[in-house]
Amino acid sequence: MSTSAPHLKRESPRRSPSTTEPAEETPLIQADAPEDSDSAEEPVGSERWESSANQTYNSLDFDEVENELLIESRKRDSGRSHEPWVIKQWVIIIIIGILTAVVAYGIDQGIAFLMKIKFEAVDKYMGTTTHNDTHIVHVDVNGTLVPEERVAYSTTDIPFAAPFFIFIAINMCYVAVAAALVIFGEPVARGSGIGEIKCYLNGVRIFRVVRFKTLVCKAVGILFSVASGLPCGKEGPMIHSGAAIASGIATGKSTKLHCDTGIFREFRNDRHKRNFVTAGAAAGVGAAFGAPVGGLLFAVEEVGSFWSLDLTVKVFVCSAITPWVLQLLLDPHEYAKTSIRGLIDFGKVEGEYNYSDIPFVILLGILGGLIGAAFIWTNIKLTKWRRKYVNTKARRFIEVLFVNGLTSAVLITLVLRGFTCLDENDVLPANRASLKRYGCNPGEYNDMATYFFRSMEESIHVLIHTETSIPIKSLIIQIIPYYFLTILTYGIYVPSGLFLPTLALGASFGHLYAQTWNSMTNGAVTLDPARFAVYGGTAVLGGVVRMTISVVVIIMEATGNTSFFYPLTMITLAAKFVGDKITHGVYEEHIHLNNIPLLDTAVEDPKYESLCAEQVMHQNIVIVPRVVTVAHLKKILRATPFDNALIVIDPESSRFVGLLLRRSAVILIAKQADQRKLELADFVKSDKERQLFRVKKYGIIEEDAEDVNRSIDLKPYMDQWPFTVQKATPFTRVFRTFRELGLRHIVVLDELRKPVGLIG
Amino acid sequence: MSTSAPHLKRESPRRSPSTTEPAEETPLIQADAPEDSDSAEEPVGSERWESSANQTYNSLDFDEVENELLIESRKRDSGRSHEPWVIKQWVIIIIIGILTAVVAYGIDQGIAFLMKIKFEAVDKYMGTTTHNDTHIVHVDVNGTLVPEERVAYSTTDIPFAAPFFIFIAINMCYVAVAAALVIFGEPVARGSGIGEIKCYLNGVRIFRVVRFKTLVCKAVGILFSVASGLPCGKEGPMIHSGAAIASGIATGKSTKLHCDTGIFREFRNDRHKRNFVTAGAAAGVGAAFGAPVGGLLFAVEEVGSFWSLDLTVKVFVCSAITPWVLQLLLDPHEYAKTSIRGLIDFGKVEGEYNYSDIPFVILLGILGGLIGAAFIWTNIKLTKWRRKYVNTKARRFIEVLFVNGLTSAVLITLVLRGFTCLDENDVLPANRASLKRYGCNPGEYNDMATYFFRSMEESIHVLIHTETSIPIKSLIIQIIPYYFLTILTYGIYVPSGLFLPTLALGASFGHLYAQTWNSMTNGAVTLDPARFAVYGGTAVLGGVVRMTISVVVIIMEATGNTSFFYPLTMITLAAKFVGDKITHGVYEEHIHLNNIPLLDTAVEDPKYESLCAEQVMHQNIVIVPRVVTVAHLKKILRATPFDNALIVIDPESSRFVGLLLRRSAVILIAKQADQRKLELADFVKSDKERQLFRVKKYGIIEEDAEDVNRSIDLKPYMDQWPFTVQKATPFTRVFRTFRELGLRHIVVLDELRKPVGLIG
Repeated sequence: MSTSAPHLKRESPRRSPSTTEPAEETPLIQADAPEDSDSAEEPVGSERWESSANQTYNSLDFDEVENELLIESRKRDSGRSHEPWVIKQWVIIIIIGILTAVVAYGIDQGIAFLMKIKFEAVDKYMGTTTHNDTHIVHVDVNGTLVPEERVAYSTTDIPFAAPFFIFIAINMCYVAVAAALVIFGEPVARGSGIGEIKCYLNGVRIFRVVRFKTLVCKAVGILFSVASGLPCGKEGPMIHSGAAIASGIATGKSTKLHCDTGIFREFRNDRHKRNFVTAGAAAGVGAAFGAPVGGLLFAVEEVGSFWSLDLTVKVFVCSAITPWVLQLLLDPHEYAKTSIRGLIDFGKVEGEYNYSDIPFVILLGILGGLIGAAFIWTNIKLTKWRRKYVNTKARRFIEVLFVNGLTSAVLITLVLRGFTCLDENDVLPANRASLKRYGCNPGEYNDMATYFFRSMEESIHVLIHTETSIPIKSLIIQIIPYYFLTILTYGIYVPSGLFLPTLALGASFGHLYAQTWNSMTNGAVTLDPARFAVYGGTAVLGGVVRMTISVVVIIMEATGNTSFFYPLTMITLAAKFVGDKITHGVYEEHIHLNNIPLLDTAVEDPKYESLCAEQVMHQNIVIVPRVVTVAHLKKILRATPFDNALIVIDPESSRFVGLLLRRSAVILIAKQADQRKLELADFVKSDKERQLFRVKKYGIIEEDAEDVNRSIDLKPYMDQWPFTVQKATPFTRVFRTFRELGLRHIVVLDELRKPVGLIG
Repeated sequence: MSTSAPHLKRESPRRSPSTTEPAEETPLIQADAPEDSDSAEEPVGSERWESSANQTYNSLDFDEVENELLIESRKRDSGRSHEPWVIKQWVIIIIIGILTAVVAYGIDQGIAFLMKIKFEAVDKYMGTTTHNDTHIVHVDVNGTLVPEERVAYSTTDIPFAAPFFIFIAINMCYVAVAAALVIFGEPVARGSGIGEIKCYLNGVRIFRVVRFKTLVCKAVGILFSVASGLPCGKEGPMIHSGAAIASGIATGKSTKLHCDTGIFREFRNDRHKRNFVTAGAAAGVGAAFGAPVGGLLFAVEEVGSFWSLDLTVKVFVCSAITPWVLQLLLDPHEYAKTSIRGLIDFGKVEGEYNYSDIPFVILLGILGGLIGAAFIWTNIKLTKWRRKYVNTKARRFIEVLFVNGLTSAVLITLVLRGFTCLDENDVLPANRASLKRYGCNPGEYNDMATYFFRSMEESIHVLIHTETSIPIKSLIIQIIPYYFLTILTYGIYVPSGLFLPTLALGASFGHLYAQTWNSMTNGAVTLDPARFAVYGGTAVLGGVVRMTISVVVIIMEATGNTSFFYPLTMITLAAKFVGDKITHGVYEEHIHLNNIPLLDTAVEDPKYESLCAEQVMHQNIVIVPRVVTVAHLKKILRATPFDNALIVIDPESSRFVGLLLRRSAVILIAKQADQRKLELADFVKSDKERQLFRVKKYGIIEEDAEDVNRSIDLKPYMDQWPFTVQKATPFTRVFRTFRELGLRHIVVLDELRKPVGLIG
């Protein structure tokens, strides 16, 4: 978390007029509550509401509303045990873990299926024998090849035009599906989603980020964007999906599906939801990398908020269940297989590091940091250009097709004309089955096809398990176009993760790095290219995402080798240190670019240290007397479109007496609190009530002649003891309270307890 | 953290009159500041001060005092960069990491040296050839034994009386040193220290727990208590040492050594110190187990408080440096050795688990939970008895000698008369060199001597690397006495960790468990005893300490085998679940027994939920007017011995205007704030000033005729914006604020901002 400056006024991250906001397609109306956030799709009742359309982000409230109703209900419940409540939480955790694994399995199998269709089609046009050839080369029990009826043919024998256009056409069909899901379905499903989840877990509400529709668009979209040959990975989207699954399960309902089970109603507040979403994100890491400890550490590193032992154990269990279930699904017959397996399976990497590697490892980390910073810098320039010119749905769609067309054209050209034939015997027997042989003689393979015409996991697998070295020329031809294509891809409107492409790039780079040293020093230095492929992957990944401990543990768990700990730690720290001097991490830069007001965990800039509460608060606060007529309350609600809570004062002394959420005010009117005293249950909406409520919500804009005679005492419904600060309270303390308690509002009072402003 | 009930009134954990407090020997006077906490050794000036002697614990303040002086200083500094400050933090982290490794190395070598002396002396009296015999058996390069001049002799040939008394005498000499250091040196150095560190990191100040003297007593004491043959480990003390080192480095001074470098003065507040102490504790785990990731997770699991990315990276780096440096120190010639090595080196354990093991693994976890609960239950009964009867220094000293004598007598008797001779060929060649042969023929070894006459690490090493099974009889004879001796040992006045004895017990138990199943089912079930030794160790350890993820990762790192992840997770969760139904973890029970008011992370008991601030606050608050005469201030300080801060009011309106720490009030008088305006620097004490201050502190009790004419305006020195709540604020919210922000005081106000109470 290293955004350059804290933005405390989260309510008003207005965009500067020169840039349009590409992240959200439809203007979003400020929703009143998380459960109701799809009210954005509803017609608006008054033009005054329109002005709230700029409010795209909001802060989550990790504090419960403490009002008299809640206190009464607690007194009633005080005899009861918490036991069923604890059991429900565990049930949710287990369901999240299992469902995340199921979704991960679906993604994995879906991609494999789409890729199979594509490559079979391409193979068909490669020449008659190729298809048979690449599929009949088997490895027998001794690890030797069992060759069958091969026909030798030279480089120029393979056709160009047919496979070229078939390949591009299939890819563009695939990517069109992914783009349509994101552009016309759910724009927030774009990209990796890690940045968004990070914001969410740190208390910034990004609308629709963990909703069911987002989950569907992301999970289905990633199938097609990965299968389309774009340099993108499924890991970030997997983490985002885990978080969305958790949110859906935790609230026990989906607005989109109009289904409300009602079973987990007690967890429908930001605080509980955050805990489950944390567990879901960790489960996503577990599914993606088979790294349960990495999942927990990812949550610790990225959430960076209040941790309790209880939450730690839950997150851990959730991220441990997922890879286990996933493994059962992937290998139902080999269920005794013991290594933890995720969507990426690097296979067990043997070998230990030598102390003499250390300088080379650190230098590699530094290079990784530089490569990462260059990556981010270029990508950010491009993103800025994009928001200026690629700002309609049609243009975005065309851009996706263009990027995919370009990528496909480059890759197929390299495969068909830029390849080198390498000896199959240099590859470990276990990996030989998946080698591609387009245009090469038997016993050889096409290096480019092997790299680009398989899943990235398989390519990495070859790089880190190769016994001998891959030719430098071959590596360079792989790295350079792929680097630029990856930069180009991140930011277009498809779901796309960065972990795998940067790992793959880095693995090639690490291989190249080791070989360069070996040949430059004429053997005085002997670095193992396979091991340096692991190091290089970590270096570039670390340089781009700037995570440290979680990346180290993820790679350690994915390779099953704990002796990589020190080199990987040195690499990620070096990459982070060097990279941070030039740019922030890619997620932070994108968060910053989207004007998402993510608060840092500490006030970093000294110039903010000397501010006080008065200087950062909103002054246009909404004040209501404690006993208010319905007419007055309606008028206030109409006149103030912001989600700022209503500040309740004692009419005689003008002293602050409480805070009423706007949402509660709407419910009070909708449910006619002037006629009966509402219960706590009235504020927890079931699906049926929510429908009613939505109608009423906009209905209240119409006045009623009776309203002036009906009045409501707000006392039971307002929070009488919200967090308040004095005008002159130093900013550092306000910030800390806000950040560490995860608040949404702090009321600013003067010496006489009269309200003067609101922070939040 | 599962203390049964939250104790919010941290200031007044009065002991019930029936029990005396054994944890602290000398009555401790409430110290005003962490830097000054050894003022307890000073004479007290007035009998009124005596009443504060009961205050043993206090809460740390993780919030800075925001007063006008601080704000002015911030404004002055606002142009300056934070860079040097950041660099200083990193320098401290690195120094902590290195020093912890050095201390760990010292402990390791010291124990080895003391053990060598002891066993050489015992060997001498075992018979003439024994000494030669056990030292000349070598393993050649092929792993076969190179026997040299052996003399066969039968069981009854070995003498009893001489080695029996020599062994006991040496052990009692050793333990006397450890006991003297703790009883007459620093009582807080007793036991493992993990519970105390947990309290400290969660905001409870236990006096002298992270001081230099404690470090010395703990680190030197553990040498002697481990070498004395008591069933205790050095891991807990190592963690405590790491924390104490961190505290010493962070503040850049030691009160005891009268040395104050002054370089790190900016970190002398509770908030910064906590962060460094967290890193130090993690480094301790790293040193003890060679588990850097485990160290970080230990901190996450035990601290359970606010985590920032910045802190995560620092803790991680610190816990990674330590085992690395330790490894360099331990193997200077083999510095290319690659596995991470800590004080415990289990060696790389190969093998993967089978799904068919799962039911056995879960059952083992349940048994571990039951064994652990029985352990804790018995130990707590014993501890209660101890506080009643073993309540003087002399009695405690005698108790230590008695427990050690008993332990030594049991062990030496087993070694000399209870042994079985086992075939050396059943042990892996690498472990044969350290086998003990007392009374056995060549090619055989004495099972009891091999188990009890070596370091516990070596015993565990044998158990988890043995190729064939150890006889059931031999295992039972090891387990039963050791179990009770371990219960007896934990709680006596020597430094003693629980990790290793419980691991060793559990490893034997796991071995026994696997063999019992194998023989009961006549081979239908074949459990690998060596692998189940690892599982069993984890089960009993988990059952006693009730940690989950950190234990799993520590064992995974110590064995270098990631495929243990799932069985270990199942075991720790099963052990925790079952154990928690019966007792709390051993550290929590001891914390509870010591009346340390450790706050849980959430209000667990529903009956507390319906309380409000008014019902939990202190009413005897100390109120001073904003402008106060020196005479009045002195009178107040004299009359109120508690560390409760002074509540400053506006004399006209009686409204609350600020909070003044008692310590600041003392400084104001001592430095004559009535004559000049003090600076922020006046409140940061250098060593020299501290001496002066201490004299003045007690000097103020004497009144001065001039005092009535001299007055001080408290405004610049008081915190004008402390956390305040309303009388009726629900307890849940007060609790959350207190716990999550790590506060020391919350002022309770009525509607008119008049102070009515103080929580803290």
